[in-house]
Formats: sequence, structure tokens, C-alpha cells
Amino acid sequence: MSDFNFFSPITEEMKVVEEQLSRSIKGNIAMLNEASSHLIKAGGKRLRPAFALLSARLFSEDLEDVIPIAVALELIHMASLVHDDVIDNSDTRRGKATVKSAWGNRVSIYAGDYILARSLSMAARYQRSDIVDVLAEASMRICEGEVIQMLSCYNVTLGLKNYLRRIERKTALLISVSCQLGAMVMNASPEAVKAIKNYGYFLGMAFQVTDDILDIIADEQILGKPTGSDIRQGVITLPALYALKNSPQCEELAKLLASPEACAHHTDRIIDIINDSDGIDYAYFITRHYARKAQEQLRYLPEVPVKKNLFNMADFILARDF
Amino acid sequence: MSDFNFFSPITEEMKVVEEQLSRSIKGNIAMLNEASSHLIKAGGKRLRPAFALLSARLFSEDLEDVIPIAVALELIHMASLVHDDVIDNSDTRRGKATVKSAWGNRVSIYAGDYILARSLSMAARYQRSDIVDVLAEASMRICEGEVIQMLSCYNVTLGLKNYLRRIERKTALLISVSCQLGAMVMNASPEAVKAIKNYGYFLGMAFQVTDDILDIIADEQILGKPTGSDIRQGVITLPALYALKNSPQCEELAKLLASPEACAHHTDRIIDIINDSDGIDYAYFITRHYARKAQEQLRYLPEVPVKKNLFNMADFILARDF
Repeated sequence: MSDFNFFSPITEEMKVVEEQLSRSIKGNIAMLNEASSHLIKAGGKRLRPAFALLSARLFSEDLEDVIPIAVALELIHMASLVHDDVIDNSDTRRGKATVKSAWGNRVSIYAGDYILARSLSMAARYQRSDIVDVLAEASMRICEGEVIQMLSCYNVTLGLKNYLRRIERKTALLISVSCQLGAMVMNASPEAVKAIKNYGYFLGMAFQVTDDILDIIADEQILGKPTGSDIRQGVITLPALYALKNSPQCEELAKLLASPEACAHHTDRIIDIINDSDGIDYAYFITRHYARKAQEQLRYLPEVPVKKNLFNMADFILARDF
Repeated sequence: MSDFNFFSPITEEMKVVEEQLSRSIKGNIAMLNEASSHLIKAGGKRLRPAFALLSARLFSEDLEDVIPIAVALELIHMASLVHDDVIDNSDTRRGKATVKSAWGNRVSIYAGDYILARSLSMAARYQRSDIVDVLAEASMRICEGEVIQMLSCYNVTLGLKNYLRRIERKTALLISVSCQLGAMVMNASPEAVKAIKNYGYFLGMAFQVTDDILDIIADEQILGKPTGSDIRQGVITLPALYALKNSPQCEELAKLLASPEACAHHTDRIIDIINDSDGIDYAYFITRHYARKAQEQLRYLPEVPVKKNLFNMADFILARDF
């Protein structure tokens, strides 16, 4: 699995995306350009453009038409990251200074708005209101997800349903929409669009659950952020939810997780309780469940080589950094 | 002039805009809905929808097709207000609590993003990329304007050009775009679109200069915010610019305006110096200049009754609250 490269069928197209991404945010104000291009240069996996391209490749060899929407998807993701960093008051992301820490809150808010508007104007190029609608709707749902997450912090009474709703909007939705839009641009049949959209949804859910596991078990070097940063911020993820229900120390855990003070200063104790429960194993089980569901959707899609790549991606997520 | 009602030719349509505006921001999250609808209920003149409707009326009696873009224009304006209130840390706007003061920064940032995405998805309904493009481009330019304003604060070395660039993006642009889009939806000729777009631009410039005058000479009750709030925030407007060049106390003024401390605590002294110069008169002269230029553009537009209304609007701005 280690030599699996998700991007290999679309290496050339990803280079074009990268170029267009840099070009897309060039405006008239040096400071806004610098802030936005700082964000682009900070990198990232460009997963959303990749999903759009791979999804489109199921239906066509020529991916030129997918480039603008691939760029728009990455822009919408970036816009939400800039605003998240303002809200979370984060100084680093992926080990580099955030726009917020380098330019301050004001520029960050405007840079986010700027990038969001740019994204939707790129989507408008297709002259298809269904495409802009899917993207704008996704952007609204992401905002909703952030508000749900905010309202759910330190709340130990909320269950699995609330968690799934949060991660759906935080991650699964935009991956799902990336797959959907890649297929839509290629004018795939409604059935095929639905299958690849579902694939993206299940894969995105699997991806976020593993992210939430890693936040507890991986160390700072792998994560590029401190271990337990969800806990520190009062974000209760699946392993913690499991422990809240099943750990012998569940009462102590509930007290700790409900207290912003304890979340900030007794993070290690919280992590220990979660690790002692079967919370990590359970979360891994849920990840497998979603990864399999993603793979099942592929059966409704054309038998072309890229399908193997999409299939492997689900296995790859399961093997991710464990 | 006192019985002039700018909205009279479009009273019925404005009611529809108001209804659709409330409906447009209904999503799945109660808190986001409350925050957004708080903003809608706080009112406002709905100038941008009105300009779109009046502009469209130049070309057609039936304004049904203009409603979505009229709503989208107000939404984009509202999105920028919510983010401005976060950035300016404002607790009241139009005499009412801001979203920021009632729900906090987090909800305000997400509410703004939500409303912006909603706006562009409404514009997408026309299935015309030129329409989404004009709106998205305007949204980006507004962000640029805010950054220019931010960078210009307390800077007494910047001149008229910088000021005009700021107010263009802050106000004139979206009024201009409102007029332009109203005409575009009605498929007006490129010449007519250009003329009404220019009309909106010049009128918007006149409008913002009078706003800047009022900030210095009107009292808190008329403004719904403290007199001199621009000065307090280090925003140097036209009357101050004039005084910086022509007042006998220009050196003292420059020192005061360059100091955040002095702007906050010696606002009255700054206002006195500006009032003693001919800064207000000069700004009023500039307003007249722009209002006349707006009226001149009308000569390229169809001879229909609504034209008189657009003409009077320019006179009305000149008479505004003086």
C-alpha cells in the first residue's frame, strides 16, 4: 500500500490546477495577493481538486473542462480555512504561519471573502446554474457545520448523530461535492453522478474519522499541530464519545470534557482515559465501515482504469499513518 | 424636494424583495437563521435592490425577473456589513445591536460567509455567467476597498486619489453594479447598460461623500452612530483631506489625525479644525459635481417616466439631511 499514489493518473492536470490556483487570486491589492498566495504556497494535499479530476476521468480522458471547477473547489476550502484560523485564533497551520498570524484578523476576514467570491465566479464560467448551486450550497452547509461544531463544544450530552452531522459538513460534504462536480462537468448520467457523489461522501466520512483518531494517537510531528488539539478546543470526537459511554472512568471524563479549563490543562489525562477505553478501536471500526461503503458505490460506475485508484484510496485511508 | 419618494415607482416590487430576502436566508441551523434574520429585520434603506428595480424599469414594465438579483444585491451588502462589524468591533448599527454584539465573532463570520454564498447562488439562477461574474467581481472589489481603507488609516500623506479609490469600492461600486445588473437582466443594449452603470457610479460617489460630510456635521440622532466615528477610527475623509491641505491649523491637524490616541480622545478638536476650514463646503462641491455627472448619463437612456425619478435622486442626495 505504501507505494500507492492517489494522484498518479492526474499528475499533469494537477500541475495545471496549481498554476491556475496561483493565477486565480491575483487582484489589485498587494497585501491581499500576498495573504492569499501565502495560503496557496503553504500547500496542502489538494485533495478536492484531485477528487474532481479523478471523478471526471471515469467519464472522459480529456480533463481540460474540469480545471476551473477543481480550482474553485480548492479556493472554497481555502476560504473556510482562513476564516477558521481567525475564529480559532490559530497561529500555525501545517506547520506554517497562518494568514491571521502574519496579517491579522482584518486582512484574514477580507481575504477569505475575496477567495470565496473568486471561487464562485470561477464556477460561474460554466454558464450552468446547477454547478454554481452545488458549490454555493456546499459553502453554506460548511458554515452551518462550523456553527454546529461551535454550539457542540464541551457538550458531553450530545451523541453520535450530532458528531456525524458535524463531520459530514466539515469534511465529507466538500469531498462528495468535488466528486459530484467532476462528474457533472462531464455530463455523466444522474445515476453515475449519484454513485460518485455517495462515494465521496462515505470516503470523506472515513477520512474525517481517521483524522479524529490521529488527533488523539499521533504525535505533533506527524500532525503538524499538537496532539489532542480537538480536546483542547472542546471538540468531542468519536473516540471520546465512545469512552463517554463505555469507559469505567466515564464520569470523570464527562466532568473533564465539560470544562474548558480541564480540556486545556488536563488534556493528557483525557487522552489516557480515551486510550484505555476501546474508543480508538471503535472509531477505526467506523472508518472501515465508511471506507467499504465508499468502495461499494464504485460498482455503479464505468469500468475504467481510474476506478482501481478510487478503490485503493479507501484502503489507503484505512492505512493512513497508523 | 421633501416629498420626493425614490421608491414610489417600485413600491409593490420592494415588498416582494423584502419577503424573498427573509426567505432567502432560511437554512437548517436556528442560530444562523436568527443571526441573519436579525440583520434583515434591522432594516436599512434597501437602496441596492431599489436601484436594480428602477434601472430595470427603464427597459420594461414587468420587473419579476429582477427580483432574484435585487435580493442578491442586498445580501451581498449585508454580508459585508456583518464582517465589517466584526472587524470594527461595532456593537450597534442603525441604532440596533449588531450580529457581532448579539452572537459573537464566530457566528458573525460564518453568517457573513453564509449570506455571501447565498447571494451568489441566487445570482446563478439566471444561468448567465456574466451576471454572476459582475456580482462576484463586485464582492472581490469591496474586499479590496476594505483593505485599502485599513491600510490608509491614520495616514495623513495619502491624497484625493486614495480617498476616491476607497469610496468607490466602499459604496459607488455596488450601487453602480445594482444599476448595471437591473439593465442586464432586461437585456438592455451595451450602450444603455454602460450609461446606467455610470449613473450608479457617479451617484454612489455623491452619496458616500455626503455620508462623509454627515459624519462630521450631523448629530448622533440623525446618524444613528456617534458624530465623528470615521475620525475616531482613523478614517480620513474628504473634508479632513481638504483641511490637511488648506487649514491654517494643518500641522496640528496632521499630528492629531496621525495619532490613534488623538483621534479617539480629541475628536472634537479635529472636527473644529475641519469645520473652520472650507472642508465641508469643498466636499459639498464635489458631491454636486458627481450628482450632475450622474444626471448627465441619463440622457443616453430611454425616455420613460422612471427616468425623472432617477434624476431627482441625484438632487435628493444633495439635499440629504443638510
